[in-house]
Parts: sequence; C-alpha cells; structure tokens
Amino acid sequence: MASKEAGKLEWRISVDNGTTERLVPKSGLIEKIFLWLKGLVLKVMVDPIAKFMRKAWRIGADDPAKVVHCLKVGLALSLVSIFYYMRPLYDGVGGNAMWAIMTVVVVFESNVGATFCKCVNRVVATILAGSLGIGVHWVATQSGKAEIFVIGCSVFLFAFAATYSRFVPSFKARFDYGAMIFILTFSLVSVGGYRVDKLIDLAQQRVSTIAIGTSICIIITVFFCPIWAGSQLHRLVQRNLDKLADSLDGCVAEYFKKKDASTNENEDEETDVKLQGFKCVLNSKGTEESMANLARWEPAHGSFNFRHPWKLYVKIGAAMRRCAYCLENLSICINYEAEAPEHVKKHFGEACMKLSSASSKILRELADMMKNTRKSSKMDFLVFDMNSAVQELQETLKSVPIKTNKPEEEEEEVPSEEDNNKGEDSEEDMTMSMSLHDILPVATLVALLIENAARIQTTVEAVDELANLADFEQDSKKKTGENSNTKQQPPISS
Amino acid sequence: MASKEAGKLEWRISVDNGTTERLVPKSGLIEKIFLWLKGLVLKVMVDPIAKFMRKAWRIGADDPAKVVHCLKVGLALSLVSIFYYMRPLYDGVGGNAMWAIMTVVVVFESNVGATFCKCVNRVVATILAGSLGIGVHWVATQSGKAEIFVIGCSVFLFAFAATYSRFVPSFKARFDYGAMIFILTFSLVSVGGYRVDKLIDLAQQRVSTIAIGTSICIIITVFFCPIWAGSQLHRLVQRNLDKLADSLDGCVAEYFKKKDASTNENEDEETDVKLQGFKCVLNSKGTEESMANLARWEPAHGSFNFRHPWKLYVKIGAAMRRCAYCLENLSICINYEAEAPEHVKKHFGEACMKLSSASSKILRELADMMKNTRKSSKMDFLVFDMNSAVQELQETLKSVPIKTNKPEEEEEEVPSEEDNNKGEDSEEDMTMSMSLHDILPVATLVALLIENAARIQTTVEAVDELANLADFEQDSKKKTGENSNTKQQPPISS
Repeated sequence: MASKEAGKLEWRISVDNGTTERLVPKSGLIEKIFLWLKGLVLKVMVDPIAKFMRKAWRIGADDPAKVVHCLKVGLALSLVSIFYYMRPLYDGVGGNAMWAIMTVVVVFESNVGATFCKCVNRVVATILAGSLGIGVHWVATQSGKAEIFVIGCSVFLFAFAATYSRFVPSFKARFDYGAMIFILTFSLVSVGGYRVDKLIDLAQQRVSTIAIGTSICIIITVFFCPIWAGSQLHRLVQRNLDKLADSLDGCVAEYFKKKDASTNENEDEETDVKLQGFKCVLNSKGTEESMANLARWEPAHGSFNFRHPWKLYVKIGAAMRRCAYCLENLSICINYEAEAPEHVKKHFGEACMKLSSASSKILRELADMMKNTRKSSKMDFLVFDMNSAVQELQETLKSVPIKTNKPEEEEEEVPSEEDNNKGEDSEEDMTMSMSLHDILPVATLVALLIENAARIQTTVEAVDELANLADFEQDSKKKTGENSNTKQQPPISS
Repeated sequence: MASKEAGKLEWRISVDNGTTERLVPKSGLIEKIFLWLKGLVLKVMVDPIAKFMRKAWRIGADDPAKVVHCLKVGLALSLVSIFYYMRPLYDGVGGNAMWAIMTVVVVFESNVGATFCKCVNRVVATILAGSLGIGVHWVATQSGKAEIFVIGCSVFLFAFAATYSRFVPSFKARFDYGAMIFILTFSLVSVGGYRVDKLIDLAQQRVSTIAIGTSICIIITVFFCPIWAGSQLHRLVQRNLDKLADSLDGCVAEYFKKKDASTNENEDEETDVKLQGFKCVLNSKGTEESMANLARWEPAHGSFNFRHPWKLYVKIGAAMRRCAYCLENLSICINYEAEAPEHVKKHFGEACMKLSSASSKILRELADMMKNTRKSSKMDFLVFDMNSAVQELQETLKSVPIKTNKPEEEEEEVPSEEDNNKGEDSEEDMTMSMSLHDILPVATLVALLIENAARIQTTVEAVDELANLADFEQDSKKKTGENSNTKQQPPISS
C-alpha cells in the first residue's frame, strides 16, 4: 500500500499507527468529500431536525389540544378548497375563491375567542373600509384631473389614522387586526378602483368570499372539539393557585427541615419542581391579559355566560402575583449564609408551619372553588384560621426579647456580644443570647409569611368577587359535611 | 303660557317652580326626542371619541416615534400606489399590483427588526411554498382522476405540519409569520392551480410584486427616521436600571424618614412615581424578550454590530427583575403595622442608607455604562463599597443581642417580657428591651437590602458580560478623574 501511494506520505503514517482494517487511506478525494458532506449534513440538518421533531412531539404529548387545532386547520382548508374544485361554486363567487382560502388561513386561531375576534374584525373592517373606499373612489372620479391627488391624499390620511389608532392600548386590545384590514381594504378598493372597472361587483364578491371563509372557520372552531380561551384562562388561574399552595408549603417545609435532607434524589427533583411553581405565576401576566381579552369575544359555554366577568381573572392574577413575589423572596431565607440556630428554628417552626399550612389550605380551597365553580362554605373558617395563625406567630415574635442601646447612648458604643452573654447567662440560665444577625433569616421568613397572608386575603376577596358576579353555585350540604371532617384533622403539609 | 297649554298640566307645574326663561315646556315631543337624542349622541359618541382623541394625543406627545411610524406607513402606501397610477408599471406586474399593496400593509411594522423579520419570512415562505405548490400541482395533474385527492391530502398535511411548527417556541419566535404565509401560498398555488391556467406566470408575478412591496418597506423603514428595536431595547434596559435605582433610594429613604412626612403634595406624588419605578421592571419581561428576538434581524446600526449579543439583554432583564422582587417586598416594611422604635431605626438607619446608596450608585453606573456603551473603570470600587456596606450592616446586626430560650427548656415556657425588662434594666442601664415583633420590619428591610445587593452583583456580572461581548469602549482617563472626585464626596441619596 505504501509503495502504491508513494506520493502521499501522510497517509502511510496514518495507516501504520491505525489498524489494518481502516479504509480511509483507500478512499479517494471524492469519497472523503462525500464523508465530510455526510457529516456536515448530519450535523447541520439531521441532528437539529431530529431535535426539533422530539421537541415538537413533546409539545403535542403535553397538550393534545394543539394537535387538534392543527387537524382543524387542515380540515378548514380542505373544506374551503371545495370552492375551487366544484365549478358551480367557483363561478358563484366569480373566481374570487382565493379570498376565502386567505381568510381561513389568516383568521383561524387556536381558540374560539381569537377566531371570533379576528372574524368580526375582518368582516366589519372590510365592509366599513370597502364602503368608504367606494365613496372616495366616486369622489375622485368626479374631481376630474385631481383624481390621483384625491385618492393619494385619502389613502395617506386613512392609513395614518388607522395605524395611529393601533397604538392606543384599549383599541389595540380588541381591534388591532381590524385596523390592519381596514387599511388593506381601503387601499385596495380606492387605489384599485383606478384600474378596475366593475368595482362594486368586485367588492361584493370579496365580501361574500370573506363571509364564506369566516363562516367555515367559526363552524369548525365551535363545533369540532372547541378550545375556549375562557376555559383555558379559568384552568390557568386554578392551576396557578395550586402551584402557589405547593410552593408555599414546599418553601417553608424546606427551610425548617434543612437538616435531615438525606432523602433520595428523585424526591428532591420533584420537590424542586414544586418549589419553583410560583415562577409560573410570576410569568403568566401576559397570558392572562390576552386570554381575558379573547374570552370576552366568546359565546356562553360550559359554566360561563356571555357576560362572564373575565376582567376579574386579571385582578385575581395580579393578587396571586403579589403572593408569588413574597414566595420568590422566601428563597432568601433558604439560601441565607448564616443558618439560624436549631432551637430558634424549633421555636418558630411550629407557628410558621401552622401559618403556611393555613395559607396554602386557603389557596387550595380557592383552586377548588374555581374548579367546581361553586362558592365555598368553609372559606370564612379558613381565613379565620389563617388570621389566628398570624396572631399566634406575632405572639411568638413578641416572646423573643431583644436588647438594644437606648437612644441617648447611641454613639456607636455598642456593647460587645461577649459582655451580654456573660451578663445574661449569669442572670437567667434558661435563656441564651445571640445576635439579630443569627436569626435574621427566621425573622425575614416570618415577616414574609405574615405579608403573604395579607396578600392571600386580597386574593380571596378577588375570587369572592368573581364568585358573586359570575353566580357560582352555593356549596351543597354534603360538601359542608366533608369540610367539617377535614377541619377536625387538618392535614399538616410538609 | 299656562292657559295656552291647558291640556299639559305637568308642564305648567314645572314652569311655576322654575324660572320663566326655561323653554322646556314650549318644546313639543319631537324637540324632546331631539334633545334626548342629542344627549345620547353626546354621551355615547362624542364623549368617548373626545376621550379617545385625548388619549391618542398623549400617546403621540409621549413618543413622537409612533407618529413618525404612522407617517411612514402613509408614505409607503402612497409610494406603492404608483404601481396602479402608472400604466406601464401596472402592466409590468400583470395587474397584480394588489399584492404589493397587501405586502406593504401587512409587513410594515413600527421597528426595523420587525419589518425585516416579516419581509424575510414573507419572501422566503412565498418562494418555498410556491415551488412546492407548483410541484404538487404537477404531480396532481399527472395522477389523472386522483388530482383532487392528491391536492386535498397535500394541503391537509402541509397545513397540519406548518400549523404545528408554530407551537414550537424557538420556531415561533422567528418564523411564526413565515409559517402562516407558507400555508397561505401553498394552498393558493396548489388548490388555485386547479382553476388557473398560467400558474407559473402567476406565481412569478406574485413573487415579483411581493419583492416590490418588501423593497419599498425596507427602504422606507431603514432610510426615513429608522426606529431600531435594538436601540429601543438598549434604552429600555438603561431606563429600567435608573428606575430601579430611584425606587431603591426612595423606598429606603421613605422608611427611615416616615416621621417628618409633612412635605407638600406635589413632591409626594413625584416620590410616589419614583417609588413605583420597579413595577416597570417587573412588567417588562415580555417586551424585552420580543425586542431581543426582533433586534437579531437588524443590520448594524449606531454602536450595535450585526452580531450584537441581544440575548444578554434578556439575561440582564431577568437579573434586574430579581432585584425588583426584593424592592416589591420592601413595601412590606414600609406598610408594616407595628413601627419600629425610633432609636432602632436610627441604629440601623445609617448602615441601611449607606448600603442602599451604594447599591443604587452601582445601578446608576450600570445605566451609565449602557448609555455611553463604555466599560466602567470605577465599577470594581463601587462593588467593593457595596460589599463593605453589606459587611457593616451585618456587623450592626451582630451588635443587637437577642435572648431566646435554650433548646432544652423549650416547652412553650417563654419568659414574659416584663421579667426580661426588669432583669435587663437593673443589669445595664444603657440598654432597653423590646421584642422581635417590634423590630421585625427593620430586620426584614435589612435582609432584603442584603439580598438585593447580591442580586445587583448578578446584574453587574450580566452587564459586564455584555460589555465584553459587545466590545464596549474602555473608560477614558478623563472619566476616571471625574470618578475619583465623586468617590471623595459620595452624594448621599435621600
């Protein structure tokens, strides 16, 4: 082999070091390039695509509603295509079936509210802008030589006004798409009228094709496995309430049980996921607001009326987020460098656990209220429990005395710790001295828990408002019986 | 008057009680309806419109860039209309000028990045889907009777796949619009090919009109007062850093200066706005992420290269948000029911103010770094200052001794406060006793400030990373001179 390839010394060296089975030296330039290309394709194309497919698969497995939506889009497009396939239908819309397909593609959204919103916007804006465009076209044709000038100015002005209105938040939330369609239709009709002869016929055909497209979208979105923005929002808030409760329980338990942390790893991971639940609440503001906006477009469905107070979900979300801010800062206590002495933890542990358990019970009850859309008969008791837990914790706080300098003497003349230790130990043997520094994390935890309780109460008020305005059912007696059982043996969360 | 309207007793009574100038009794039914209608129109139409106009005016006055964008939309539409007005141009695109107008309306966004993103998406998706559609059309025509079946299935499958890909977050962030255009074009070409004869001519004309539309958009968006998503993001982060600094200073000052709060109202309002600054940071996650996504599409501009690390802004934003969570919870201390005794506040006041001032100085320096896109020569000193302030505060904490029960004795047998008071007072006259409950807000404030310092350090690291990757300028010597002056006389924020 070496003699055959005398000119290629490098290859001989490579063969001598490797095994004889290696075929690399045999391959010519073309084969090398092929292998290199194959590697490149694998690296640049196949691997990312495989990764993408795995990701896509997981998304579908996590939320089958998304797969359903894709099937519905395919179905809607196949349906609307019939206007091309059948000659009478195609001729019926004057060869403008294109607009029906376009409408379906652009308007079909993953939930009913968004689809309705876009349908209404598209139809109303098209009709409005179409009439206005025909009017401007008529004026322009009457004005003789100034025709182009009249059209140009009106397009500029209306485009300016419609674009500007898209910056007004209250308008944008509902009519953003409509404003765009308005500009589009107005330009097409008024400018297009300059070249098209039968403008009114054309406008009529477009409106009718758009109407066909929107009807198909609405029928498919409402009657085939409908995905309601309202229900999604309702479930989101309910899930977030549960997550908050889990996080709260988890964080407080984590803090007070730091020492015996020799559990297995799987459990740890699960706990971690639960601890991080509040982060979902922190990040769901945008979703909640857009969902609430879309839900307003939806007709009555499930237990939601047409005039269901969707805006209150935003309010509940805001109240929950304020709780989540408290939980976020609980991590300060967990990660604090100086750990509080074990007996201090013990001293506060019980009261803190009681408060956190009372608080999370309220959150779970709120989630339950949302889930069953019924008023809670035991909420008052739970809130009372939480408030007594707060008071108990405050009493516990009051039982920890602190010495500080009197105001008069406060010239940086702080008594050293040793001195105090001595003095106290000799005075009372059952107490021991430590600095505020040592118990800072516990104190912070306590303050955050107390504040969190207040914020949970705001959340309760918001959910109560929703329950009243949305006419949630009264809690049945059977449930009340269950509740009293639960009350006798409160599950201590850990 | 009374005798004239004998039949209308009600009116007479009304006249007797009112002044004689009142003309209401004179008006007949029609006039009453007219007045009622006028009132209704005023209430339903004019008032909301006036309110809307005022709101719109304020939006334009606050951010003239929005007005500029609207003018640019008007200009782009006027320009693209020329393809209708001039016969040779209109014939040149085979009467398909409509697609150019449509492209301008749909693609023109308020910043360069978004416009680029949509342009690229539209052109690439149109070409891809167009070729694929022509291919499918060819296969369908070859398959004889199965033509409709082949077309229908391929539309269903591609619509399904493209819609599904829009759910993959990493794909959606960049190619959401492209996926929609892909479905649209593919359906129009493959289904439309069933009725249209010169399919390839049509496709070519559409591509060329879309190219014309996108070119006009890109030229106008880049060369007429360009609004860069990147610059907007950069300024947003910079402004947020300043707001955080203001909030931090404000909250701490507010807490320690609660007593002499008899300033005038205007000042109070201004302070309130400053205090609430952190809320902007809390709510800017979505904006930052979408801006960072759009900025990646923008060519080099100002001090930003094409490969500017925009992703780091999201990281910086996240770090800032963690600071904002701390600030949000500072409000707990400010609103705490039991106020800490004045001398305790005094004891901690100085150290807290020092730390908060050191922290906010860092935030302001970071904002300055962003503003001037230069590295900071004094950041190391500032961080050192902050860390010493933290240590000082911790020393102050350590100087506050606390007595608690020893672990052995902890059977709910807490020594009452009175006992402790007595003992201590007799022991040492310069100290006085209080409970943990009294100093809880101060302790929480201290814990939050210390945590906030740690989080600010993370922010510093993130901004430093940006400064290194984006090759910020080195700080000039002149600036260093200024800095050392500032260091000698640190402005105490209040």
